Amino acid sequence: MTRLPESTQLAFGPREGEVRLERDPAEMSSDASVVFIGHVASPWTLREECPKNMRAARETGKAARVQVDATYRPGLVGLERASHVVVLTWLDRSPRNLIVQKPRHATEVKGVFSLRSPARPNPIGLHVARLLSLDVTSGILEIDAIDVLDGTPIIDLKPYMASIDAFPDAVVDGREGSR
Amino acid sequence: MTRLPESTQLAFGPREGEVRLERDPAEMSSDASVVFIGHVASPWTLREECPKNMRAARETGKAARVQVDATYRPGLVGLERASHVVVLTWLDRSPRNLIVQKPRHATEVKGVFSLRSPARPNPIGLHVARLLSLDVTSGILEIDAIDVLDGTPIIDLKPYMASIDAFPDAVVDGREGSR
Repeated sequence: MTRLPESTQLAFGPREGEVRLERDPAEMSSDASVVFIGHVASPWTLREECPKNMRAARETGKAARVQVDATYRPGLVGLERASHVVVLTWLDRSPRNLIVQKPRHATEVKGVFSLRSPARPNPIGLHVARLLSLDVTSGILEIDAIDVLDGTPIIDLKPYMASIDAFPDAVVDGREGSR
Repeated sequence: MTRLPESTQLAFGPREGEVRLERDPAEMSSDASVVFIGHVASPWTLREECPKNMRAARETGKAARVQVDATYRPGLVGLERASHVVVLTWLDRSPRNLIVQKPRHATEVKGVFSLRSPARPNPIGLHVARLLSLDVTSGILEIDAIDVLDGTPIIDLKPYMASIDAFPDAVVDGREGSR
């Protein structure tokens, strides 16, 4: 597993009260392995300009693309019927050892599993996007927005199903929408 | 990577029109590795009785648990404020090489990325559950339902946020809710 550059480590702290795992998951023996099925083409090449969540990404008005590798393109057949897709990304430029974090502008530290931070033991990003177009031959999906850096690997795509995925009344006490 | 037993392979076909990848992702060199952060304790020990999706799981009226390993429990602090959680599982008893599939009762084959099938190149399950209780010390979350077999590994937990995750008007033409 590659170590992240020092600049990336610094972008994620250290901040007061944060706790790091004794063993970095990026350097542990793996329990299972993922294959990258494609990557994101997004307008965001610098961390500082990358939207912090999908709502902020949408507010920029900038669309994005998902490029699926040739091997996996037959798996896209039928996805065009979905109005929205679940995109699972591998956030390869985030540290994996921050178990308790202090989000910028937050006064208290929080456990990683109560945050949507990209820095997590398994750096998997969950993004629900509107599907604008899909071309199986070229493996290109156009989506309305994305909140990850250009080139971020994709590990799964799923049709979003309101009956199992939409809980409009869900709440998180004391905050909303940030990650 | 371990091969799945023959009985499991048979449970997933072969069915007419299905297409398998030339190279099984389970046997490819990995692009990245995941660590298991815990596992699911569910009422389902046999594939035949396991609900096919979260709606069906909820209809059984049977709750479930997520058990987080000691190392990762500090990451749970703050998650109790969420009414709903996103559970990402590693569906370790599904084949990974079925790129075009014929769901039971379906007349046409479909690409894996247009299905919520557990058999996918990266067998990651996405489950949105109501959080009934959370005990950080023991690492136990009680949730209202789950549609995976007992013992399925967990790879991530996130707070569900309606502002970025809930699209009640999303549609999939020609079907609803099944996986």
